[in-house]
Amino acid sequence: MTSDELFMQAALQAALKGRFTTSPNPRVGCVFVRNAEIISTGWHMRRGGAHAELAAMQQARDRGVSLEGTTCFVTLEPCSHFGTTPPCANALIEAGVARVVAACEDPNPLVSGRGFNVLRAAGVDVTTGVLAAEARALNPGFFSRMQRNRPYVRVKIAASLDGRTALSNGASKWITQSAAREDVHRLRALSSVVLTGAGTVRADDPMMTVRSEFVARESEGEVRQPLRVVLAGQQPVPLTAKIFQPTEAATLLVRSPGSAVDSAEAGRVAVMECAAAGGGVDLTELLNRLALEHHCNELLVEAGPMLASRFLAEGLCDELWWYSGAILLGADARAAIEPLNYQDMAAVDRLSLRAVTRVGNDTRTILSPDSDQAAAANDLQTDLYHWTIED
Amino acid sequence: MTSDELFMQAALQAALKGRFTTSPNPRVGCVFVRNAEIISTGWHMRRGGAHAELAAMQQARDRGVSLEGTTCFVTLEPCSHFGTTPPCANALIEAGVARVVAACEDPNPLVSGRGFNVLRAAGVDVTTGVLAAEARALNPGFFSRMQRNRPYVRVKIAASLDGRTALSNGASKWITQSAAREDVHRLRALSSVVLTGAGTVRADDPMMTVRSEFVARESEGEVRQPLRVVLAGQQPVPLTAKIFQPTEAATLLVRSPGSAVDSAEAGRVAVMECAAAGGGVDLTELLNRLALEHHCNELLVEAGPMLASRFLAEGLCDELWWYSGAILLGADARAAIEPLNYQDMAAVDRLSLRAVTRVGNDTRTILSPDSDQAAAANDLQTDLYHWTIED
Repeated sequence: MTSDELFMQAALQAALKGRFTTSPNPRVGCVFVRNAEIISTGWHMRRGGAHAELAAMQQARDRGVSLEGTTCFVTLEPCSHFGTTPPCANALIEAGVARVVAACEDPNPLVSGRGFNVLRAAGVDVTTGVLAAEARALNPGFFSRMQRNRPYVRVKIAASLDGRTALSNGASKWITQSAAREDVHRLRALSSVVLTGAGTVRADDPMMTVRSEFVARESEGEVRQPLRVVLAGQQPVPLTAKIFQPTEAATLLVRSPGSAVDSAEAGRVAVMECAAAGGGVDLTELLNRLALEHHCNELLVEAGPMLASRFLAEGLCDELWWYSGAILLGADARAAIEPLNYQDMAAVDRLSLRAVTRVGNDTRTILSPDSDQAAAANDLQTDLYHWTIED
Repeated sequence: MTSDELFMQAALQAALKGRFTTSPNPRVGCVFVRNAEIISTGWHMRRGGAHAELAAMQQARDRGVSLEGTTCFVTLEPCSHFGTTPPCANALIEAGVARVVAACEDPNPLVSGRGFNVLRAAGVDVTTGVLAAEARALNPGFFSRMQRNRPYVRVKIAASLDGRTALSNGASKWITQSAAREDVHRLRALSSVVLTGAGTVRADDPMMTVRSEFVARESEGEVRQPLRVVLAGQQPVPLTAKIFQPTEAATLLVRSPGSAVDSAEAGRVAVMECAAAGGGVDLTELLNRLALEHHCNELLVEAGPMLASRFLAEGLCDELWWYSGAILLGADARAAIEPLNYQDMAAVDRLSLRAVTRVGNDTRTILSPDSDQAAAANDLQTDLYHWTIED
C-alpha cells in the first residue's frame, strides 16, 4: 500500500460509520493529513447533516488546528453545488487545503468531475482513483441509482440446510436463531427500502422495522428506518396488518391493475400504481420508480418464495443473502425457491460466492450473479458487511 | 498455555501428518524435549510402521542425540503390549527417558492405563491429561470404535443452495465445483470405510477411491484406500459396476434377507450378510460389525437421499458434512433429504454448527447432533480438518 492508499483506507473506515444512516445520501469519509499524520477525521452521518469534509473541518476547528497546506483524503468527489450544505469544494479552497486525494468521481452524471474542476481552478492539487473500487463498494446502491436508475437489490432468504422455509403446515418459527435474525436488522438498516409481498404480510404480520439495539453500536446511536414497501398480489392485502399501522417507519403499498386491494381502506396508506408484469407488479418499473421517486439506494427483498424467486429469475437480484439454519426439515416442507424447470445442468446459472460467515449457530452466505456491476460492487463488501455479530 | 501444553501442541501437529494413513491405528504424534527444546519429533504413519514414540527415537538416533533424561510428549498413552512393534513403554524406559507427558489414556479398556503403570514402575515421572480433548478429537473414530463398538460416522451431502441434489431428470453433474469435489477425496482419505447404496452405484457408477493427488501433499505421498462398502437394496446391484472391479481398494457388498443381489455374480465380491431393519440393512448391526470385523474407525456415508436420511433419522450420524453449491435448482429438482413429516417446529432437532468454510466457489458446513460424544470429538475438529484447500 502506498501512503495515499493508507490514508484513503482511514477515510473508508470513517465512511463506514455512516453505513446505516446516510440514505439517500452516499456513505463518505474524510481525513485531513499534515506531515504524514491524520489531524482530523469526519464522515457523513445523515441527510441534512454535515458532509464528511465539513465534519472533518469542524473537528479540526474544535481542536484549534489549521488546515492550511494539508492534504484532504475523501472517499467521493467533493460536491460543488449548493444543496442542504454549501459546496465542500469551496470550503476546502477557503481552508487553504493544498491537495485533495479522492477515491472516485461523483457517479451523478450531472455533477461528475465538477468538484475536481473547481478545486483545480483554485490551484489545489487533485489526485483521483485511489482505492476507487473500495470506495464504490461502500455505496453499491448510490452508484446503482445514479448509473442504472435503479436500486442495488439484495434478496434475503432464511432456509433450513435442505432449503426449506416452512413446514408443510406453514410453521416457520424459527428457521434460524436469534443471532441470524438480529443480523437481518443490520441488513435492513443498510437498506433504503425493505420490500415484501402481501402473502408474507398475511402469513407473518411482520413489522419489518429496524430494531435499534442491533445497529446502534455501529452507528453512534443513530437509527434510520427504511421505507417499507408491500406488493399487492392476487389475494387481498390486510390493511389492518402491523406494517400499515403508523410508526416511525413509513409504508408504501404498490399495486398493479390485477392486484386485490381493499379500496375502502386504501385511502389510509400511501399507494403507488405500477404496471403489471410477470404475474404481479412490473418489478423493473417498480425499481426505477423507487430510485427516482423515493431515492432508494439499496433495496432489501424479504419476501416469500414466489416474490424472491421472481427477483432472481428476472435478473434483478444483485446479491443473494442466504441464511442457513442448522436444521433439516425434509422434502415435505415448503421449498425456498419456486420450480425452475431445468432439464440440463449446463443451463443452471452459477452464482459467485462472495462471503460465507458463521452467525451464531447459523450461516450467512452472500452470493452474486456474475455481472460486472455486481463484481465491481462486491470487491470490498467484506468491509461494508463487516460488523459485530453477537452470538 | 503452559509449557507442557506448548510441547503437546507440537506433538498434536506431528500426529496430524498421519491423518489420512494410520487407519485402523490411531493418529499419534510425539516430541522429545530437553532443556525446553524439541530434539526429535515422530508420528505414526501407517499400520505396521513405527509407532510415534519409536519414530521420534529413530530420528534422535539418526542425529546421534541421546534421549537420556529427556521428557517425552505423546498424544496417546504409550503401548505396553507386543504387537507388530515392541512395546513403546519399554523402549522409553530403555532410552532413559525421565518423564512422559501423555495427552490421554488408551481408550481400549483392555490395555488402558497399563502403559502408564509400566512407566511408573520403572521410576519414570508420568503426567497425563495435557490437551486431552484435543488429542481425542484427533481420533474420533478410534475412540468411537474402542468405546462404542462402532465407527465415528460422517454423512456427506452435496446440494444446491436450495437443498437439491439433482434435477428432476436425475442430472447432477455438477452440483459443486472441482475444489469441493477434490475436498471430498480428503474426506474419504480420513475414513476407514466409504459407504454407499446400490442406488448410487446404479445411477452414478462411482469408483469412490481416493485420488492420490488430493491427499499426497498432506501425507508425505502416502495414500491409503478406504474399504468401499455397498449396501444392497430393493433393486438389483449391478456387480459389473466400477466399484466392484479389482483395484487398489477393496469392496464389500452388504445384503440383508430382503436385498436384491444377482447371486450368480455374487461369488465374485466379498459379501456381508446383515439383519434387515428400517427398510434395508440393519445399520446398527452393520456399524458394529464394521468396527469389530473390519476395524473401521471413521466411516463416510456418500449415498443418495434415502440412505443418508436413514443414518440421520436413526441417530447414527456423528457429523454431517454439507457441501453447498452456489446454484439454485428449484422446487422441481430432487430433494437432498427425504420427507420428515414434522408438524411442529419445536420437534425439529437443531444441529450444532462446528465449522463453515469456503471451498472454491462452494461452501462446506460441518454440523453435529448435540450429543456428548460428538461435542467431545469436535472440540478440535478444525485442526483435524484444517488442510490446504486449493481453489
